[in-house]
Amino acid sequence: MRPSGRAPDEMRAITIETGFTKHAEGSCLISFGDTRVLCTASIEERIPPWLRGKGEGWVTGEYSMLPRSTHTRSSREAARGKQSGRTQEIQRLIGRSLRAVVDLKKLGERQITLDCDVIQADGGTRTASISGAWIALRLAVNGLMKGGDIKEDPITGQVAAISCGIYNGTPVLDLDYPEDSSAEADANFVLIEGGQIAEVQATAEGATYDEEGLLRLLRLARIGCDDIFAKQLEATK
Amino acid sequence: MRPSGRAPDEMRAITIETGFTKHAEGSCLISFGDTRVLCTASIEERIPPWLRGKGEGWVTGEYSMLPRSTHTRSSREAARGKQSGRTQEIQRLIGRSLRAVVDLKKLGERQITLDCDVIQADGGTRTASISGAWIALRLAVNGLMKGGDIKEDPITGQVAAISCGIYNGTPVLDLDYPEDSSAEADANFVLIEGGQIAEVQATAEGATYDEEGLLRLLRLARIGCDDIFAKQLEATK
Amino acid sequence: MRPSGRAPDEMRAITIETGFTKHAEGSCLISFGDTRVLCTASIEERIPPWLRGKGEGWVTGEYSMLPRSTHTRSSREAARGKQSGRTQEIQRLIGRSLRAVVDLKKLGERQITLDCDVIQADGGTRTASISGAWIALRLAVNGLMKGGDIKEDPITGQVAAISCGIYNGTPVLDLDYPEDSSAEADANFVLIEGGQIAEVQATAEGATYDEEGLLRLLRLARIGCDDIFAKQLEATK
Amino acid sequence: MRPSGRAPDEMRAITIETGFTKHAEGSCLISFGDTRVLCTASIEERIPPWLRGKGEGWVTGEYSMLPRSTHTRSSREAARGKQSGRTQEIQRLIGRSLRAVVDLKKLGERQITLDCDVIQADGGTRTASISGAWIALRLAVNGLMKGGDIKEDPITGQVAAISCGIYNGTPVLDLDYPEDSSAEADANFVLIEGGQIAEVQATAEGATYDEEGLLRLLRLARIGCDDIFAKQLEATK
Amino acid sequence: MRPSGRAPDEMRAITIETGFTKHAEGSCLISFGDTRVLCTASIEERIPPWLRGKGEGWVTGEYSMLPRSTHTRSSREAARGKQSGRTQEIQRLIGRSLRAVVDLKKLGERQITLDCDVIQADGGTRTASISGAWIALRLAVNGLMKGGDIKEDPITGQVAAISCGIYNGTPVLDLDYPEDSSAEADANFVLIEGGQIAEVQATAEGATYDEEGLLRLLRLARIGCDDIFAKQLEATK
Amino acid sequence: MRPSGRAPDEMRAITIETGFTKHAEGSCLISFGDTRVLCTASIEERIPPWLRGKGEGWVTGEYSMLPRSTHTRSSREAARGKQSGRTQEIQRLIGRSLRAVVDLKKLGERQITLDCDVIQADGGTRTASISGAWIALRLAVNGLMKGGDIKEDPITGQVAAISCGIYNGTPVLDLDYPEDSSAEADANFVLIEGGQIAEVQATAEGATYDEEGLLRLLRLARIGCDDIFAKQLEATK
Repeated sequence: MRPSGRAPDEMRAITIETGFTKHAEGSCLISFGDTRVLCTASIEERIPPWLRGKGEGWVTGEYSMLPRSTHTRSSREAARGKQSGRTQEIQRLIGRSLRAVVDLKKLGERQITLDCDVIQADGGTRTASISGAWIALRLAVNGLMKGGDIKEDPITGQVAAISCGIYNGTPVLDLDYPEDSSAEADANFVLIEGGQIAEVQATAEGATYDEEGLLRLLRLARIGCDDIFAKQLEATK
Repeated sequence: MRPSGRAPDEMRAITIETGFTKHAEGSCLISFGDTRVLCTASIEERIPPWLRGKGEGWVTGEYSMLPRSTHTRSSREAARGKQSGRTQEIQRLIGRSLRAVVDLKKLGERQITLDCDVIQADGGTRTASISGAWIALRLAVNGLMKGGDIKEDPITGQVAAISCGIYNGTPVLDLDYPEDSSAEADANFVLIEGGQIAEVQATAEGATYDEEGLLRLLRLARIGCDDIFAKQLEATK
Repeated sequence: MRPSGRAPDEMRAITIETGFTKHAEGSCLISFGDTRVLCTASIEERIPPWLRGKGEGWVTGEYSMLPRSTHTRSSREAARGKQSGRTQEIQRLIGRSLRAVVDLKKLGERQITLDCDVIQADGGTRTASISGAWIALRLAVNGLMKGGDIKEDPITGQVAAISCGIYNGTPVLDLDYPEDSSAEADANFVLIEGGQIAEVQATAEGATYDEEGLLRLLRLARIGCDDIFAKQLEATK
Repeated sequence: MRPSGRAPDEMRAITIETGFTKHAEGSCLISFGDTRVLCTASIEERIPPWLRGKGEGWVTGEYSMLPRSTHTRSSREAARGKQSGRTQEIQRLIGRSLRAVVDLKKLGERQITLDCDVIQADGGTRTASISGAWIALRLAVNGLMKGGDIKEDPITGQVAAISCGIYNGTPVLDLDYPEDSSAEADANFVLIEGGQIAEVQATAEGATYDEEGLLRLLRLARIGCDDIFAKQLEATK
Repeated sequence: MRPSGRAPDEMRAITIETGFTKHAEGSCLISFGDTRVLCTASIEERIPPWLRGKGEGWVTGEYSMLPRSTHTRSSREAARGKQSGRTQEIQRLIGRSLRAVVDLKKLGERQITLDCDVIQADGGTRTASISGAWIALRLAVNGLMKGGDIKEDPITGQVAAISCGIYNGTPVLDLDYPEDSSAEADANFVLIEGGQIAEVQATAEGATYDEEGLLRLLRLARIGCDDIFAKQLEATK
Repeated sequence: MRPSGRAPDEMRAITIETGFTKHAEGSCLISFGDTRVLCTASIEERIPPWLRGKGEGWVTGEYSMLPRSTHTRSSREAARGKQSGRTQEIQRLIGRSLRAVVDLKKLGERQITLDCDVIQADGGTRTASISGAWIALRLAVNGLMKGGDIKEDPITGQVAAISCGIYNGTPVLDLDYPEDSSAEADANFVLIEGGQIAEVQATAEGATYDEEGLLRLLRLARIGCDDIFAKQLEATK
């Protein structure tokens, strides 16, 4: 039995509030149960130095947890003077995941930064970040197209992410914090609408799993992401 | 005329949503018009090294702006590797202001950290932070008293803050961003319910003002803080 | 009674030694009793990036305490790898205060940095820094005008600063360290010769004061600054 | 056709030189073609603070590339003042992978640090690091057991890692740099001798792959790791 | 001919003002011509962690140049966030030089820090620092002995330092800045009263010198240090 | 008697393996007994900002010890976030030493960085670095000349370095770690082929030595460097 009483393939309630902040070109507050992440898309008419003159744009991600988004307060990375390895790993994952569905040539010489700030954490913050970042990106690009800055849509599809894991021997979908902290293995899947895989990060600390286990988690992830894809479309209509 | 059409002594609409996050011992999302700050109070059963063995507690503040809380995106202080002078100045101000209404002996050997994270900025973020932090603190201390951890209330009064300034030659209350960025002078007042002043920071870059000007701003601040004191009470009832 | 035996409105002895170092375009060693600060003005024919092309100059301040300027040795900020919040706050205050009496257009596209290094500390180091920095600035600008680099004097007036506080219930002028460390409230005033206020920073940690108290401190500050203004003129004649 | 002329399921030549440095408790220089990594295991009789008193040990990994291990020189992370996100991600992966085959209780209250320093890079440095680190660990633990410091072998199995990817539409094993830099997708597999999966990191930047593609890469990885497992055994005999 | 008109073996005027700051246990402002360094000795009743329990004390040095001690302003190391290689090299040299004349056992479990802050630079700041630091140390230790904290004098002799160099082909003593910046070779000698050498740092960038040249510089250094030894004694009488 | 049984003027076995890494323009692994340093020369067609437009090149050195090159593991400087004073001192020494034999005009507007990474340490790592760096530089410049990028050889001579010291009262050549850690005094000499001295760093912590002692060490250094000069020539033939 899951601590929340959910069925193994049951997601938490997803809510999406678009336009949560007024300055960003695109934004949403996305919730998976008690996990809440503010995702904003910021367009800047400049690109990283190593891309100059190539006629391409760039999409990148940043991630942070508010100090008291967690059960016990964590010190600020700004106060400690550096970002943790975990933060940097997640930031890189967010950027790669979104770039998997963007044609950077069509974006033109501009950069879109997807800031994912965790307001409240209850497991699955990195996957909620990716799923919400797509919405912020979609809204920002809609604005660019409406304003005539971009002719052809640079977004080639939808991307969403979800965590799965083996909890008490059972593969389960969308781990919350109590499950996450005692799962034998957990995996984050980043999937593209239509069936393709953008990224798999399957980690077993202590425990391990076999090919069949990996496939069962992947199939759960498909169920979850199909749900998210629908919610994303609805939110950006 | 003020850009917003407000009267010189007219505040922006204040809204307060308590319990905005579930992990913190006290929290609220406070808004002054489009300025929105998430304030959380975190209780820790430890104190700074220099206070050990004195039988006293400590109250401190931290402050940050989300990268896209502003018109144009700012880089993260965590990514730059240090907090700006402005951030540190505001953090120190928040801490001092709250300590002005706390009896640290009665608090006992524990620390309360007031995290003020700006979700959206439109002027007056530091004063909104102080006004909201008092609410988070009040809620957290209520919990300590209800749980029997503290016998006597360590909070000795209410504290609130507001900015005033001289805009187009007229003293005005509660500056928003368009006013703040072109005011001839601006001042932040931290006031105690009942008439006392906890802190004045009156700054004139380029312009200056005389004694009479300072007093007129102080009187506007009293009007504003009286409004905030009432809202604080209502929110923490 | 004050620990030093001074009357409430009595300043410490002020001495000013101009030309204390030979490389700086302007310099002085200013003393308020045992507080001694070396102030230098350095002219550079370059301006911060965000000012380029505006035909204006810039005036900025830096501040530091020598490690053994205080009763017990403090570690070097350079060794710790960052400047404290207090240092940054004071640096920003020095810069704003001096800019309040400089016409940046008339200064032309150059930057003047006012370095205030505390040789010995006994209270009031930030206000001594501002009062001494004006002298260094005046001397440096005199040199620019004599050399024909500037036609019209960009300095629009004199600026000086002094601390006041409530000590044992009595408002007193020019706090020394024993007073500063046990005052109920203290305030730093930056005043312009002729009666205008450039900046007020009135802080009460624990104690508070009312409007009347603030005004009494302001009046003491006027007495003190008038004394400093006279000394500044004499030193730069 | 692969640039090196290898068959799709053909590994590069693996060489292992154990005892490459004399101070480390275990060490080897492992080569996969032109990729050469020095792996050392250092035993320290101390554990991280958060493990104290639990009667367990710890295994952790560190990773670095010499500045001229690559085609063009990279600046030193020590000179830049921080480790890159990539470095931290790889360090965390090395640590997790090795802990997957260590019983930390049986290790006792000591820490083993696996330093993986890339002498020359030609693709696959992180997987070579993991495969070599196991050898260094095995040798270090052999020493502990021979010296009587440990009774029961805390190493529960062999772990090895290899990269696979889709190059010109074909799944290939053990990517070298020319393949790695132009592969449509690549994946790093960390496998346990006997068939279990410790970690999968499958990343597609731009391209994506389906379930079948992932499985084909996993099967290639098994072929590669079986080869490495044999070489590891031989080297530590 | 030397730019200053001095003879090859002629020192600049040395002046020493002891007790320059009141808080330090020992202090002096030492000048070699226009080079002026404030040296303070701070006694702390604690020792570095690696010395604990050995019954010994420690003597260490720190060094800094005020930003406008030089011809053109240098940025603060505290603002840049790290100390330069040059600063660290000089700090290490000051510490070693002073330890060469201190019996750390007799000093007892306390640390003396010698802070050398350059007020004005005109060549030879590191050697002036060492020569002045000995005076500050002597004064501080005198205080410890007078106060009965130390029975036996831990200072075993006098140490002084001077720079020499080859300027326009001629070996000269006590280089000032114009000489230092165009000398073919320069060397810093740290000598012990009585004839022993504590440290030689002879550097030739571009030019080089032979054994005879090194010896001629050493002999000049003896002349200079004998002068300093006499001044040190006089100042600490 | 020396711990190794060597005669006082006997060097350790020197071995040099050129071309140790394939990417660098010049490289060697140089060993002095158990001390092993990887030296690489990297040519970059850019120069430091302060050299631009002068028609000159630059030669610089960097140095690092692998964490387990020593008896006990040291933490990484990259993880600590800064390079130690010792590292910076050695880097500066390597750069100066190599520049002593390079005509920067003839090098043209390019920079050569000499990276010296200590694989295994047993005393004398900085002197081995200099001696090996010359080989890497020679090989890299040979490549530039062969490729026609440089017409005239910018290398004006050979440079090598060796440490000497007083061990148990006897001057000895080429200290290994057991000697280095208990020597009364030690000195590093950087010599130019033909008899000139580029640099002397003679340090006595606690002990001291006289003029005669310094000369005896210098003569030992000549013996050692003559041996190294021959090995360098042989390796770069």
